Amino acid sequence: MYTINAQEAPTTTVDTEGAESTKIQWLLTSADGAPNFALRRFIVGPGGHTPRHSHDWEHEVYILRGEGVVVTDQGEVAVATDQAILVAPDESHQFRCTGPDSLEMLCIVPNGPATAGH
Amino acid sequence: MYTINAQEAPTTTVDTEGAESTKIQWLLTSADGAPNFALRRFIVGPGGHTPRHSHDWEHEVYILRGEGVVVTDQGEVAVATDQAILVAPDESHQFRCTGPDSLEMLCIVPNGPATAGH
Repeated sequence: MYTINAQEAPTTTVDTEGAESTKIQWLLTSADGAPNFALRRFIVGPGGHTPRHSHDWEHEVYILRGEGVVVTDQGEVAVATDQAILVAPDESHQFRCTGPDSLEMLCIVPNGPATAGH
Repeated sequence: MYTINAQEAPTTTVDTEGAESTKIQWLLTSADGAPNFALRRFIVGPGGHTPRHSHDWEHEVYILRGEGVVVTDQGEVAVATDQAILVAPDESHQFRCTGPDSLEMLCIVPNGPATAGH
């Protein structure tokens, strides 16, 4: 068993083009022994957002705290605490923090290109 | 994109032998289009626990709320809010709620035997 508390985990700024006020924590990865998928936590500050992009792997997201919207080609969907979201492969998406506090969310991705370097 | 709020999601009692006061919500599954892994939420009531067992797939767990312990062959580890836990394949494990409120946690498993029927 491997365990880490996100409140104490290393945090890095997402410097991908199009990201704003977004930090990431790689909590469980293949380096920790995860065979198939990686668990990350994102912290998006007020007014911040992840890149608007698409890729050929899915996201499974769970909103821990805060308020936001998911932007897709079909429009915007409001999300809040305890919302689970499946972003399908190749679906354009962006997460935006719309509340006064940070939007905190988990995002699970399959091992492979999505987890390169981790 | 598919989305569901766990506060409104269907909830069923875990009737596996060895489980006590444990409910499950299947939030994101292959039936919703998830290609590789399923996101479930467990709600373990005070004094309750999941079965003590092992299987050949991993768990990636994230504690949302509450206090508990994970029991393994190496002993007990206390866990609380924002704890991420990797239970390796074939590792014996049990989650026990030790606090006055329910232990709420996400548990992600690979599609396959772990998700049969979902």
